[in-house]
Order: sequence, then structure tokens, then C-alpha cells
Amino acid sequence: MALINSQFLKVSQDAVEQEIAKRVNVFSVLNPKVELIRLDSGDVTLPLTPSAIEAMLSSVHEMGRDTTFRGRGPVRGYPFLIDAIVKGDFRSRGIKMQPEEVFVSEGTKQDVASIGDILCKDNRIGVLDPIFQTYIESNVVGYRAGILEKDKHWSNIVYLTATPDKGFTPDLPTERPDVIFLSYPNDPTGVALSKAELTRWVEYAIENKVLVLFDATYEAFIADPDVPHSIYEIKNARKVAIEFRSFSKSAGFTGLHCGYTVIPREVKGYSLYSGRSIFLNDLWQRRQTIKNNAPSYIIQRAAEALYTEQGKKEVRQSVDYYMTNAAMLRSALDAAELKYSGGVNAPYIWVQSPWGSSWELFERLFSRCRILSSPGERFGPSGEGYVRLSAFANQNQVMLACSRLADFRM
Amino acid sequence: MALINSQFLKVSQDAVEQEIAKRVNVFSVLNPKVELIRLDSGDVTLPLTPSAIEAMLSSVHEMGRDTTFRGRGPVRGYPFLIDAIVKGDFRSRGIKMQPEEVFVSEGTKQDVASIGDILCKDNRIGVLDPIFQTYIESNVVGYRAGILEKDKHWSNIVYLTATPDKGFTPDLPTERPDVIFLSYPNDPTGVALSKAELTRWVEYAIENKVLVLFDATYEAFIADPDVPHSIYEIKNARKVAIEFRSFSKSAGFTGLHCGYTVIPREVKGYSLYSGRSIFLNDLWQRRQTIKNNAPSYIIQRAAEALYTEQGKKEVRQSVDYYMTNAAMLRSALDAAELKYSGGVNAPYIWVQSPWGSSWELFERLFSRCRILSSPGERFGPSGEGYVRLSAFANQNQVMLACSRLADFRM
Repeated sequence: MALINSQFLKVSQDAVEQEIAKRVNVFSVLNPKVELIRLDSGDVTLPLTPSAIEAMLSSVHEMGRDTTFRGRGPVRGYPFLIDAIVKGDFRSRGIKMQPEEVFVSEGTKQDVASIGDILCKDNRIGVLDPIFQTYIESNVVGYRAGILEKDKHWSNIVYLTATPDKGFTPDLPTERPDVIFLSYPNDPTGVALSKAELTRWVEYAIENKVLVLFDATYEAFIADPDVPHSIYEIKNARKVAIEFRSFSKSAGFTGLHCGYTVIPREVKGYSLYSGRSIFLNDLWQRRQTIKNNAPSYIIQRAAEALYTEQGKKEVRQSVDYYMTNAAMLRSALDAAELKYSGGVNAPYIWVQSPWGSSWELFERLFSRCRILSSPGERFGPSGEGYVRLSAFANQNQVMLACSRLADFRM
Repeated sequence: MALINSQFLKVSQDAVEQEIAKRVNVFSVLNPKVELIRLDSGDVTLPLTPSAIEAMLSSVHEMGRDTTFRGRGPVRGYPFLIDAIVKGDFRSRGIKMQPEEVFVSEGTKQDVASIGDILCKDNRIGVLDPIFQTYIESNVVGYRAGILEKDKHWSNIVYLTATPDKGFTPDLPTERPDVIFLSYPNDPTGVALSKAELTRWVEYAIENKVLVLFDATYEAFIADPDVPHSIYEIKNARKVAIEFRSFSKSAGFTGLHCGYTVIPREVKGYSLYSGRSIFLNDLWQRRQTIKNNAPSYIIQRAAEALYTEQGKKEVRQSVDYYMTNAAMLRSALDAAELKYSGGVNAPYIWVQSPWGSSWELFERLFSRCRILSSPGERFGPSGEGYVRLSAFANQNQVMLACSRLADFRM
């Protein structure tokens, strides 16, 4: 008989989502004429940029013609996109990068959740808290999390807790993990790491032979010149870090699914039995060959178009639009005398509940301002006491939200 | 330090591919004016059909407009495509199917290689031999294959060997596996199962509590009315079978990546410790939520278009084109007095080497007919002694190949 991976039974059934859905439904029935403003979602709202659309239209035409049709593409992605990435995201910043270090993929979620395939279950994982829960859940189903304790922490995960007293930047861990997931600019806290802060992590990783898995999904939203856009801006990071990148948020590709993962040649893992060191780039290449594909030619052409001068300008405009939303929300929160972090280098604002309870703040925003926020519990145990507001909304809606926030203290 | 999954080191580095590449390179240098005809690839050559192109163009336009843009889509796929699938592939054949039993995915390779995520490593897997090696490799890296023995068999895999004396249809296994992968119409043997033969497997699975993973990628190529297009045409198969389907070959989607996996509500797995039965549909839903996405809106609209009357007609034309290739190749092989199977219900022809060695047949086809074939070793230990010819080629090339086959015996 087929035996299941019982770890899947331990992954939450999204009690938080259900609770939100229930409240929204009740509210909508009781207040059919009141428009709810949704600032709870990390999904983008602006349409795809003209450069991306044009590239897709022309490549769709290619796919319909005998002479220009493309079947199966290279597992790592097409060279035209990899070259654009290497030049546009790395060499332009003075970072050394070779094409064979880049793997184009069908999205960062997939790569972040699957990188554990090439790591055995005996690794101890360090994860930020609060954080997007895929980081935790993928390790629970990969048999690396241990037991769920009463305080909602998994016994074998090293939590890197972000607290307001340290600006939501966690200390280096006292217990040494084998692998650390870092995600900056951060979802949900909106905090980014300065060059000095990120250097501290890289040096720690080198000294302690820790593999760093760095999720840079929100790098396009960085405004502060002292914040690195890539972990490879830090000296020697090539030796210890894998970086995940995505076009989802910067260019509105959440519905297209395209990202990439960088594994420098030098990054190594170790064999449990022989202790021999192995290059992770090779292992990931094998993993991708067996299990995945790069995205379709059409979508890779769309991604390539983002690196043209016009494409870059359009991406900048999208990012500015969302960051204008973030700035408006920050002003309104200031006026409402609410404490928060983020909204400067990231499209998320992490708002502290004046009453200590996420749900109380969620409820006040909901019932008094008709604003839907994302309760901190969505992001792990240290999310308690906060809600996340997202700047990925229509600007008119955000303006309306800001005016409604004036009622918050009434 | 990060510990690797050493199983990846045991997955072949494609020695066969390298050997072929070497021979092709040497030949091309020595014979620069001779055109090699490639019948080694399973990739399609016809451009996408007009219906699919039109659907993509119009959905790309939608993605560029404020009012019709779509961000993140449903994890299981859009209802419009799921409905088209349920009606077009199942209800039209009198098969009961509910929308919530269908998971649209970014390709069958991915789903076949990842279904093991929801099964624990203690399952014994039964796999056809010869077969597309993803079936084996995904279980090697999933710690389920055991040790590679000198005869190239993995110790913990139950091989279902297809031999010519039984028309390449393996016997029911004497050792009971927990899970069986079946793939019909088959790549590489080109053989399909009749309703009676498939019924035998389903009955065996029910009696022995075996989970059947049925890959129906090539169902569109079936010509024989007695061959089921879906395992769910067999009574009670809903209780024990998961089915994988793909648009890759039928509609030329190898470069788009879209397929779907069917997990009927009734299919169960068992918890190793409690023995409790669990519905696999629920587990796969959780797995997809954590790790994957359905393909982009654009590609799902292209797939939907295949189910319109015009779309079905165009798919039929593509299939007929490739199966005409197969028929021509069969005639030429007959004339060359070569023994083979397939080419009737599948776009592959499995040719037996008159000398017992794959490489000898490969070499004769290569040097005498300038035809590139796929040596049987690519498909596992029982592939020895055969080569696979693919009908997925340009028809003029196939005609030329047929005329060159006249030289085979010279």
C-alpha cells in the first residue's frame, strides 16, 4: 500500500485565511454598499508593461510559424535571457557573474520551496521570524523541522527573531544552523539590510560554514543607496550564498511565473557520509533536469524585454507607483499615531498593534476604516502583535484608505 | 555545514547523450555536406496551432490592460480550463469527473517527478523497463531506489520488464510494489494497452492495495478503438489511480509547459505510523500550494482553445501529420526487414537490433542511412538491443529517411 509523507498533515490548513474570509463575508452581507479596501495581498495590480507585452506578442507570432517555432527550451533558460540578467543585474553593479551560474525558473516560490531537494534532511535550518511561511512549510514537508511545540515553534528550526527594539534585524544565532534563509528587503517587516549588516551575516556564514539562501525578490524596491541589491555585493558571498530573484513584483509577473536562482561555482555542500565537498551548482543542474523546466520562450522574451532601456524605465515607473502608495500610507499611519516599519525599501508596511494583538488591530482597521490588512500570524509566531499593509494596490484605493485612516483613533 | 542529498551523485551524467554528441560531432566534421536526419528527439516540430496562437494573442492583450490584467492565478488552475478538461477529456467519454479532481500544472515531467513528495521514502516502486528515465531518477533522488547493482538495476525498484515475446506488455509483478508507474501509449516501445490488459492492472492494484500512477501523455495518438484513452475508462480505477496528462505532444506545447494531473477524491494513501488512510487529493493540494503554480493565464487560455471544435480539428491534424510519419517509417522498416513495435497508437517506433546490440544498430543507421536514432540504453537496462525512432520530425525529412533506409541492408 502507498505510504504517505505524513508531514503534509502537519502543515496548517490556513486557519488565518479562513478566519479572514469569514469576517469579510459577514461584513459584506451586513454592509453591501460599503467598499472594502484590500491592502492584504502581495499580488500586483498594475498591468504588464508595454515592453513585456510587445515582446510576448512578437514571440507568440514566432511560435505560430514553421520557421521560428521553438519546442523544448534549455533546462537552465535561454542564453538571451541569461545574458541580459548577467549584464543587467550583476555586471552593471560591478559583480562578477558567469552565465552558467544562473538558472532561470518558473518562479521563486518554487525554487525556494525546492532547494531542499538537493540538501538532506539532516540539516538544521535557520529561518527569519516573521517570514513568508513557504520557508517553514517546505522544511516541514522535507522532514527538517522537527516537532511543532506548544509555542508554535518547530523544535529543529533555528528562529531568527526580528523584534522592534533592534529595528526588526535579528541577531546572529547562538545555535549554529547549517543553512540560513535570509530575505531582504523583507516580507512582511519591510526592513532592508545595510551593507554593513549584510556583511556581518556573510562573515558569520563563512566562519561557521553555513549556507546562506538569500531571497532578493524585492530588490527593485530599494531606495537607500547603502542597501545592497544583491548579496554578491558583499565580499566573499560567492563562497557561501545562493540568491533567488523574481520578476513577479518588480515587473508584475505574478501571473507569468518567471524568476531565477544564482548558484556561484564556488558554493559547496558536504556529503553526510564521506564529508566530501560537492558543488551545489552541479547538483541543482541535475535536479532541474529531472524535475523542472525553465519558463516558456514567450515568458523568457518578456523578461528579456525588462532589461532594455525602455523596459527598465517602465519597471522603474511601476516600482515608483507602488512606493508612492507606500509613502502615502506611511503619512497616514503617522497621522493616526501608529508605529510601523518598512515602506521605504520595500512595498510592505509592518504596523504594530497599539493593543498588542494582531487581531485587535486587524479588527479596528477593518470595522472602522474598512481596510483589509494581513494579520501577523500569517507570518509565524513573531508576527503576533502586527499587521502587514501592502502597497500593491490601486492608487485611488490607497488614497481612499489614507483618508479612512483618519477615523482610526475616533 | 550544509549537507547534500548525495543521491543526486548517483544519477547518471548522461553518458549516452555524451556518446551520441561525440559521434555526431565527429561525423559532421568528416562529412560537412551530408545532412543528418534527427529521429532521436521526442520534441515536436510543427508550430502551435492557430487556435492556440489566437488565444494567446488575445490574452497577452488582456494582460496589458488595467481592467483585464490578471495577477496570481488559482493554484489548481483557472476554472475555465478545468471545465474544458473535465468536459472534453472525461465527460465526453462517459467518465465521471469533478473539477476539484483536476490540477493544472506546468508540465507532466514536473508532476511525475514530484508526486513522490507526498509519498514517504518507504514505498517500494514498480517501474516499466524500458521507460523514460525520469521515473527512475526521481525515485533515486527521493531515496526510494536502493542500491545500483552491477546489472544496472536498482535494488529496491520492482522492474516491470517489457519483452518482445509478450508484445512488450509486462507481466503482473511477482513481488508486490506499493506504487506502480504505468505509461501508455508507451515511450519508448510505442505499445498501448487494450481495455482488457489495462483492466488486469487495475484489478491487481485494487486487490493488492497498490497505487497506480498512470502517464497518459500520448493518449491523443491512439488509433485503435479498443485502447482506453484514460485509465478511468476502467471500472473502479478511480479508487486506485492518479493520471497524468499533457498538452506537450498532442498540441505541440513542449515549449509552453502545460499539463494536468487527475487525483480522484477516492484515491488514498496510508500513514506509516497510524495506518490511517488519507486522501491524496488533499495532500497534493497542499503540496502544490507550498511548492508550485499553475501555468500562466496566457498558456491556460491556449490550452482551453484546444477544446473548441476548431482547436480539436487542428490538434487532430497535428496528430495525423506525425502518425503519417510513423506509418511511412513502419513501411520503410518493413522493407528493410527490421523488426519493431509501435508506430500505430504512439509516435514512437521501437526497433530491434538484428545484431542484439543497440549501438550496432545505432551505428548502422547513423553511418549508412545518416539517421540519428535514440539508443535503447537511454531508457534503462531492458533498452539494450533496441533503438527508438521518433515520428516527431518534419515530413520531408521523414520521407528522406525512408528512402535512405533502403540502403540499410546494402
